[in-house]
Amino acid sequence: MSLNIVVAGLPKAVQGAADPDEGIWLTEQQKQRITAVAEDVWLEHLPVSALHAGEGPQRPPHAIMVETSGSKKGIEGEQGILKMPGLERLLNPDLKLLQSMSAGAEHLVGIMPEGVVLANAGGVAANAIAETVITGILAEAKMLRQRWAHHDAKEWQELPARELDGSVMSVLGTGNIGTVTARMARAMGIRTIGINRRGNKVEGFDEIRTTAELHAALTISDYLVIAAPLTSETNGLIDAEALAAMKPGGWVANVSRGAVHDSAALVDALHSGHLNGALIDCHVTEPLPADDPLWEAPGALVFPHDSHASQLLGDRQVDVFVDNLSRLVAGREFRNVVDLTRGY
Amino acid sequence: MSLNIVVAGLPKAVQGAADPDEGIWLTEQQKQRITAVAEDVWLEHLPVSALHAGEGPQRPPHAIMVETSGSKKGIEGEQGILKMPGLERLLNPDLKLLQSMSAGAEHLVGIMPEGVVLANAGGVAANAIAETVITGILAEAKMLRQRWAHHDAKEWQELPARELDGSVMSVLGTGNIGTVTARMARAMGIRTIGINRRGNKVEGFDEIRTTAELHAALTISDYLVIAAPLTSETNGLIDAEALAAMKPGGWVANVSRGAVHDSAALVDALHSGHLNGALIDCHVTEPLPADDPLWEAPGALVFPHDSHASQLLGDRQVDVFVDNLSRLVAGREFRNVVDLTRGY
Repeated sequence: MSLNIVVAGLPKAVQGAADPDEGIWLTEQQKQRITAVAEDVWLEHLPVSALHAGEGPQRPPHAIMVETSGSKKGIEGEQGILKMPGLERLLNPDLKLLQSMSAGAEHLVGIMPEGVVLANAGGVAANAIAETVITGILAEAKMLRQRWAHHDAKEWQELPARELDGSVMSVLGTGNIGTVTARMARAMGIRTIGINRRGNKVEGFDEIRTTAELHAALTISDYLVIAAPLTSETNGLIDAEALAAMKPGGWVANVSRGAVHDSAALVDALHSGHLNGALIDCHVTEPLPADDPLWEAPGALVFPHDSHASQLLGDRQVDVFVDNLSRLVAGREFRNVVDLTRGY
Repeated sequence: MSLNIVVAGLPKAVQGAADPDEGIWLTEQQKQRITAVAEDVWLEHLPVSALHAGEGPQRPPHAIMVETSGSKKGIEGEQGILKMPGLERLLNPDLKLLQSMSAGAEHLVGIMPEGVVLANAGGVAANAIAETVITGILAEAKMLRQRWAHHDAKEWQELPARELDGSVMSVLGTGNIGTVTARMARAMGIRTIGINRRGNKVEGFDEIRTTAELHAALTISDYLVIAAPLTSETNGLIDAEALAAMKPGGWVANVSRGAVHDSAALVDALHSGHLNGALIDCHVTEPLPADDPLWEAPGALVFPHDSHASQLLGDRQVDVFVDNLSRLVAGREFRNVVDLTRGY
């Protein structure tokens, strides 16, 4: 079987890319793994500038792996991210698989041609993202900012740091990120409540509630971790009322999509002192404008949508792609298939 | 059975004490739990100043719970810590149990009279201390100091943060703190090597090595967590050679006793760049003098010996004491008994 493959765009958190500006990132070892999936593999690692400039691949691809960024709108100035003009140039009648390198793929739903499977890379970044969430929680509990200030002043001052044992975390979204976050949180004695649409049982949580029971869960929650895909149902779900329902002194992380929470309401809750802190990795407009009030909200920490940064990400992306290429060759079902009607 | 009980000194990390300067900290609920262990209990909550001034308890105690601080030398200016002059005034022929509120009790070994059991409070702070260690590790991996600096400057800048999965941690000391630290580390994908004197098997580690195999373990370790009691064998064990054996870019935490590591060698390893960072909670001289070079070592974070700070500590101290009091009343063996020949 002859297989034409295109890789274009740079997964945002891949470290040590050969040419970040062009989205050239596969190592020799990664290329060998991809070309080893069949006897006759043609692999192109396409400069993003060429696609943006109107050029196409040398051979029409059967499978493509692309980084299309996580935002609905085009993002200016991002390294090696293949944006909409250019992406559709890869589509052709022989195309079977479009492998996104991101977990979220709602922005691709509209352009998918009949007969092409859209797969996401859900799970590859879950570990790093979950670690980032736990980092934020621990830094706040252990008062790390004050500790560094004391250290810099050579000041010996004990602080009323807190322990996580016995606290409660609601996790909106029980996919890979939510599940790994819950696993780590539970290792620290946090009780975890997973929230999903229908209250479907998911391993790894202490309990599961439906989206309709969200506010009740928040009432007893010290922590809220937003790890749900952006859909019409989750858009704006964490609004002022939801935040008000949380326990006083609560803390919020959003590591999925900015539009799931109401940023103005979050800023208000931080200013009023109802919430103690927040780690916000994803924002409706990225980069977050310098005049966005979130920057100055007490206890807020803005992440530049890189909570998934990891030295292991590139290999994990290739793991998923190679697995799906092997399935293509063997005629088996793809994994990580995006349901185009649901958007995730 | 009539039981006279004295509580004196304030566990360092107890929050919300009634009179911190005097070491008065038991809540009404905690007092009730203590007095409920027998029918006729006399409980004194002694001001430390009275003991320091030469006064004694109103009734000779059968059991005492004291905070004696974790340092061999007297510490000036610490809140409600009962130091050596004063402590011996509580000793009497009817005394059966001296319940230390600290894990380390090597400083009490020399003064224990025949027939009195010295018990420590090992374990009560393990969770909070382990969380502190993980906080330091995550903060370094996620480049949290830089992130706060970028946040303060409203700067949107992605960082090559790292993921813990696949890294290796050596834990010197496989007691409560080491075991809990390993449990949390493993939840983040860290491989854990417990180090104890004889290589005794301990649950919760991926593998166990003897102290003699320490350097071999450090050769493959990204992290070293010092959680061993101070004994003649551990004194100075983490010297320049041990630190040099660690993987380049390594990170060290000491949460037991300052004398276990050579602070000058650690400072050198941080300056040379061989080590990336360190969280040092305990120091040979406390408070750490302002001219100590550790303050200015790159990547160092000095903790003021409060890694165990927790809102849950007071209740846990009382848990241990009440358990041992119940054993005293029932004539059963005490728990957490310190081996006076080993010092822990």
